[in-house]
Amino acid sequence: MPPFRPSFRISRALELPHGHAPRPTLRAHQIRSRQLHSSSPRQVESPQPKKAAKQIALDSWRYPPPSKWPNRLRLLCLPLMVAMVYSMLTSEPEPVKTEAPTIAEKDALLKRENGVSEQSPMRLRMEQFIKQHQKQIVAELEKVDGTKFKIDTWQRAEGGGGITCVLQDGKVFEKGGVNTSVVYGRLPRAAIQKMRANHKALDPDVDSLEFFAAGLSMVLHPHNPNAPTVHLNYRYFETADEFGNTNAWWYGGGCDLTPSYLYDEDAIHFHGAIKQACDKHDKAYYPRFKKWCDEYFNNKHRGETRGVGGIFFDDLDETEKDQEQLFSFVQDCLSAFLPSYLPIINRRKDMPFTEEQKHWQQIRRGRYVEFNLVHDRGTAFGLNTPGARVESILMSLPLTARWQYMHEPEKGSREERLIDVLKNPREWV
Amino acid sequence: MPPFRPSFRISRALELPHGHAPRPTLRAHQIRSRQLHSSSPRQVESPQPKKAAKQIALDSWRYPPPSKWPNRLRLLCLPLMVAMVYSMLTSEPEPVKTEAPTIAEKDALLKRENGVSEQSPMRLRMEQFIKQHQKQIVAELEKVDGTKFKIDTWQRAEGGGGITCVLQDGKVFEKGGVNTSVVYGRLPRAAIQKMRANHKALDPDVDSLEFFAAGLSMVLHPHNPNAPTVHLNYRYFETADEFGNTNAWWYGGGCDLTPSYLYDEDAIHFHGAIKQACDKHDKAYYPRFKKWCDEYFNNKHRGETRGVGGIFFDDLDETEKDQEQLFSFVQDCLSAFLPSYLPIINRRKDMPFTEEQKHWQQIRRGRYVEFNLVHDRGTAFGLNTPGARVESILMSLPLTARWQYMHEPEKGSREERLIDVLKNPREWV
Repeated sequence: MPPFRPSFRISRALELPHGHAPRPTLRAHQIRSRQLHSSSPRQVESPQPKKAAKQIALDSWRYPPPSKWPNRLRLLCLPLMVAMVYSMLTSEPEPVKTEAPTIAEKDALLKRENGVSEQSPMRLRMEQFIKQHQKQIVAELEKVDGTKFKIDTWQRAEGGGGITCVLQDGKVFEKGGVNTSVVYGRLPRAAIQKMRANHKALDPDVDSLEFFAAGLSMVLHPHNPNAPTVHLNYRYFETADEFGNTNAWWYGGGCDLTPSYLYDEDAIHFHGAIKQACDKHDKAYYPRFKKWCDEYFNNKHRGETRGVGGIFFDDLDETEKDQEQLFSFVQDCLSAFLPSYLPIINRRKDMPFTEEQKHWQQIRRGRYVEFNLVHDRGTAFGLNTPGARVESILMSLPLTARWQYMHEPEKGSREERLIDVLKNPREWV
Repeated sequence: MPPFRPSFRISRALELPHGHAPRPTLRAHQIRSRQLHSSSPRQVESPQPKKAAKQIALDSWRYPPPSKWPNRLRLLCLPLMVAMVYSMLTSEPEPVKTEAPTIAEKDALLKRENGVSEQSPMRLRMEQFIKQHQKQIVAELEKVDGTKFKIDTWQRAEGGGGITCVLQDGKVFEKGGVNTSVVYGRLPRAAIQKMRANHKALDPDVDSLEFFAAGLSMVLHPHNPNAPTVHLNYRYFETADEFGNTNAWWYGGGCDLTPSYLYDEDAIHFHGAIKQACDKHDKAYYPRFKKWCDEYFNNKHRGETRGVGGIFFDDLDETEKDQEQLFSFVQDCLSAFLPSYLPIINRRKDMPFTEEQKHWQQIRRGRYVEFNLVHDRGTAFGLNTPGARVESILMSLPLTARWQYMHEPEKGSREERLIDVLKNPREWV
């Protein structure tokens, strides 16, 4: 198992509290006070306009519709807001005293004035990339299912926000989520110390550091027990020095397949597509990250991997390859998702199945819940973070699951063969 | 929340590996080597003989039927056994070099020669007490359900063992487990250091200490959404010095109720029965342990208690009351279970319910899984212990559960009222 790495935890903790969109000229405490007006995520059915689509879509995601609270009500809240702001300012960890703008403020300004291009900071390019891919993936999955995703956008008062797209009780998918999140925040000293194990560029002598994290994460649980569950997550992490300049940065992520009934051809196709994306960049990547995946997505208490794997990696920084090369690698990995999974879901979604097979799928769903709630560091960290957006974090759980005492598959059955493969991970390509 | 206390972790880790019953005259490494012959728990349908019932029943639990492995096969395994024993002896933490018998050996001898009386060590009295109560509770629940429990007995090579009684897909209970476990083992130095925070009697200058733990734990999930889930756990923990004399000891446990639909009269009856048991011993106990329960059984990530509570306590030792008084308290708490729960299950089990109510119950079951897998220290510790008996630990999970994205109860509904009570725990008596 890879050692405990805070980078992973924080990039999942992306899926965090929601509030109003920060405006570039506001100070952090003013922004925070606005949270008082917002208690539930704003639900916006993706507008998808025809004209100048890309820019308008990005803007609509970036700037949510104005608050429905009348101005008079806001005034009435003023004393409470002042008290809250005071308590937040006095109870939070000591902020670094600096007049330099935060990277959140810089990025908001840059986006407003110049949009996003290849000359933009990696933060903005990664954000744009994952949001574009989220749209594309959602559109393709809607075609497969024939059902629209429910789309919630949410903002973090400290900067950033997310888009949670969920499809529940669809025709093909029992439950599926495709989420992006972008977080600007400050890392406390303890977190910095831990991260230094993997990123020596981090300054050990500061009380806190500004950070940025952006990622796309997705889980799809199909109805049909012949169709496998799939999970994907790609993320970019960066810290800034006190002047708002990039300090450490790294990429992490992966993609893995979890069948209830194993079709070798599916595992071979899935791994093949991922290997192809890896091989374009480094022939050593696929075997290295395939192994990492088997080690990480592992229900150690049962001695079983969660599924038939895929790839998993973390902390890829300048000691691995340069930033452009790694961004290109992550782009290719994410772009490989649709070709890796669509052929599988299309050939399995309408297969006939028995009640016993559905029953077995429900038991496997229970194992999925076990991994996510017991072993997944990101989920645990997210749930233990005060104010986390629980519904986005637990979007990964299946709609239904089952725990049956001492269930054992019959000798020589397909169910037994799956367990055998999970206990002894195979090489698929 | 009470601070992290290893005593709790270890008493749950009771539900640990299984092997052959240790014989009093065997040395530890010989006992361990027998594990090789045993790979799955021995399933014994409780024989329940009519004559001399108590003693025979206890003996049958204490000494499992002989191995089915023929002697020739055992001989064939000898080289492997020797290799295993060597590797275990060399890779385990340094054992204390002593010629004194272990408490496991002493207790086995005492039981064989004198049986268990009020003059026996507390270890044997607690073991006898929980096993007697397990039988009584199982018998009463079988009457309520009309279905027999499935009974698995398992032994730990190092000493002790357990009885797992599970009822699955019964007429009243969707899933229920009533387990006892008894563990003899050695605590490593790190665990001793942590325990010293609550138990100053522990010697800080040893590499390891022998310990004993015995407990009864139970979870019942009824089918009917009007009938509440109930959980109970009472345990006794002891450490020995290098001469096999009792060093530190303490009791822990509690009992709590988790309804999907709240009937105030049920919560009042349940708390009333527990309060009565507490008040017999100390008027301060009920309010103190009721609060502890609300704080511990708490899905902090959702800001909800798991259910309507009951009591919870840990680390009750000589600084609280003397050992006889505390044993008597724990006996009364456990004896209060049947009168606290039977009237509730009997009036709810046959109530009519709708499909929507079943659906809501499934969502509440999901919250139960979240608490047990994310927050419960005992479950997490057990699952992360190599070789743990996973099926006994996860017996606490419901048969089925559901995670529905952004599910919110209707305004003014009974579902909403439950959430309100879980967010703001009440005083019931």
